[in-house]
Amino acid sequence: MNPEFIDTLVIKNDTKIVFLIMDGLGGLPMGKKNQTELESARTPNLDTLVRESVCGLLDPVGYGITPGSGPAHFALFGYDPIQNSIGRGILEAAGIDFPMTDRDLLIRINFATVDAEGIVIDRRAGRIDNATNRRICGKLQENIRNLSGTEIIFEPVKEHRAMLALRGEGLREEIVETDPQKTGLPPISPKALVPEAEETAAILRELIQKAGNILSDEEKANMMLLRGYSRYRRYPSMRQRFGLNALAIAGYPMYRGIARLLGMAVGPQPSSIREEFDALRNHYGQYDFFFLHIKPTDSRGEDGSFDAKVAVIEEVDSLIPNVLALKPDVLIVTGDHSTPAALASHSWHPVPVLLSSADCRPDRVDRFGERDCITGGLGRMPMMHLMGLALAHARRLEKFGA
Amino acid sequence: MNPEFIDTLVIKNDTKIVFLIMDGLGGLPMGKKNQTELESARTPNLDTLVRESVCGLLDPVGYGITPGSGPAHFALFGYDPIQNSIGRGILEAAGIDFPMTDRDLLIRINFATVDAEGIVIDRRAGRIDNATNRRICGKLQENIRNLSGTEIIFEPVKEHRAMLALRGEGLREEIVETDPQKTGLPPISPKALVPEAEETAAILRELIQKAGNILSDEEKANMMLLRGYSRYRRYPSMRQRFGLNALAIAGYPMYRGIARLLGMAVGPQPSSIREEFDALRNHYGQYDFFFLHIKPTDSRGEDGSFDAKVAVIEEVDSLIPNVLALKPDVLIVTGDHSTPAALASHSWHPVPVLLSSADCRPDRVDRFGERDCITGGLGRMPMMHLMGLALAHARRLEKFGA
Repeated sequence: MNPEFIDTLVIKNDTKIVFLIMDGLGGLPMGKKNQTELESARTPNLDTLVRESVCGLLDPVGYGITPGSGPAHFALFGYDPIQNSIGRGILEAAGIDFPMTDRDLLIRINFATVDAEGIVIDRRAGRIDNATNRRICGKLQENIRNLSGTEIIFEPVKEHRAMLALRGEGLREEIVETDPQKTGLPPISPKALVPEAEETAAILRELIQKAGNILSDEEKANMMLLRGYSRYRRYPSMRQRFGLNALAIAGYPMYRGIARLLGMAVGPQPSSIREEFDALRNHYGQYDFFFLHIKPTDSRGEDGSFDAKVAVIEEVDSLIPNVLALKPDVLIVTGDHSTPAALASHSWHPVPVLLSSADCRPDRVDRFGERDCITGGLGRMPMMHLMGLALAHARRLEKFGA
Repeated sequence: MNPEFIDTLVIKNDTKIVFLIMDGLGGLPMGKKNQTELESARTPNLDTLVRESVCGLLDPVGYGITPGSGPAHFALFGYDPIQNSIGRGILEAAGIDFPMTDRDLLIRINFATVDAEGIVIDRRAGRIDNATNRRICGKLQENIRNLSGTEIIFEPVKEHRAMLALRGEGLREEIVETDPQKTGLPPISPKALVPEAEETAAILRELIQKAGNILSDEEKANMMLLRGYSRYRRYPSMRQRFGLNALAIAGYPMYRGIARLLGMAVGPQPSSIREEFDALRNHYGQYDFFFLHIKPTDSRGEDGSFDAKVAVIEEVDSLIPNVLALKPDVLIVTGDHSTPAALASHSWHPVPVLLSSADCRPDRVDRFGERDCITGGLGRMPMMHLMGLALAHARRLEKFGA
């Protein structure tokens, strides 16, 4: 079933849905106990909740596919992550709330260091600080505003990362990325992959040359590498599709940006997990869908810090009563993908999920963990269908057919 | 996989398949025992059968989708319920065995009561009796036979419900339904939703006005409300697709009608569950596929009568030996969708299924219930693929590829 089919059945009411997303929640067994992070964590509140819930394992994109944050979140919100593939450039732009237009080609810049022969010796320019990043983007913008009738916009992001927007007519994204992916090689020339992209590629070549001249006196960031070319694309909003008035509560720019791409309102930037739960309570009356994004589960997984990831899960568990006190009609607890500390990276393993609602059909799972969820009533399901289930339990879908 | 792929592999033999369908079988836990209707029922015969069967949970249309009877039965018989969506008008016509043609636009009529100002005060005209319904349809038919070259046919159905067929060229179904869905409002005008439907809409407006005049002296049924416009559509039959000579044993008109739409023969109307099993035995030699439709599980679920639904399941269980005595090559016991007494309506929850056959691979399920079926060997699967499994176990599918 195409997940957009549910859009035809949507009705409105005043029920409330909470998606509590622990980024990278899924894990792998490690250590003496041979348990995953979630299995190892003490989660008395989730374990109580799970007994009245229906559980399962979600595949973010498909069997064996390790997703980035963009596709994984699109799937969570009911968007087919392959049909709605999202370019890194758009994600970068969304993450800094850059006002995109239909005419934009959005690109991620990594500032890098090249030696006298033009060989990349540091792909992250020694992770220059944010102030240097801003200064360099300002210098580039001052000297480059327009090439062949195409407007050029630089925006700093963080450390060595920046965003580049080309704004004009007929811009194309089918162009070779210039990052050689390892040091000891020169940047790759941005060749057009299809004839129609030739004009855009020529603009990029001119831009790279000019930028190289402007940055030649920089000690570290004396070159820019381009990747993630993405033409701006408008996605139907969650309001259009599901009639939901959605609020995102997230600290990290990328997730705030993804939420904005789907038309969610974005709450004030929280500085702790507890503040996210406080924000949920404070805005609970104004919205009917809430996306709480917990980043540190993923960050500690990426660090390979098993115990630290466990501690984040336990902190979230201790705050579950704060959500339950609001009596949401549907509460879903899951992750966007797995980030096992054992791999120190995103992975393809399915993600445990718990759906709690008055009209759910509980299974026999009595502990929230990967191996427990295998026997859950949701079975193993594509993540993109979770939103339909959330809407069904919130009584927001009408019957199909007579 | 598109379920029509199996059509390419069909071979014929003389095996027999029985689909025992308890309408609305799936339930939700209720009461002290916190069990569903099926879990709570004493089903010694099904529990014995289940030990030699393979079980699972079926999704009629998709995650979170609550199906009407039409789509749910189409899925049971191997027809993609979204690709083969079936209009209410066709269902109504099929249910009274109305001889449809390719030129028909089929519409459901609800007779209603309007006050002197034309405001709907009873959407069901006090549920007039069948005799009154027949008399009114006769009166309408006598006075209206043709409008703008389009033949007009009225057929009574039951109580306040009737069927209207427009027979002509170029009729369209993209027209606003006239039922305001609640009392206190006037009927809605049947506006065309696309320009191509303007002519059909004009015929309906003329028809409604004339009918209003003809019915103006009726005490209760003085107006007709129109809904479920459906152009007749021919579906490939089960004989064409699967080479099956199928018999439907069902008491309710709608299910007899659905069976006819798919080319099944329809047995005499049974007046009890036991009579359905008797009909199966009596016609067992003449067909190779049998659809036994048990309606009261759904009716009692719709009533919210948990115990009464349990009793129906127990009655069906007591008759299981009658089916087994016939030694069908494949016996499937399931429902078309869930109708939990807890919700008193159809729902989106998956439906338990049991497939018994000499060559099935039994799982460890030893009790026929929703939570037991979670761990069944079929897992959780789309209902439209069940027919392929039935054919495979009946050895009616050849190998795919060399």
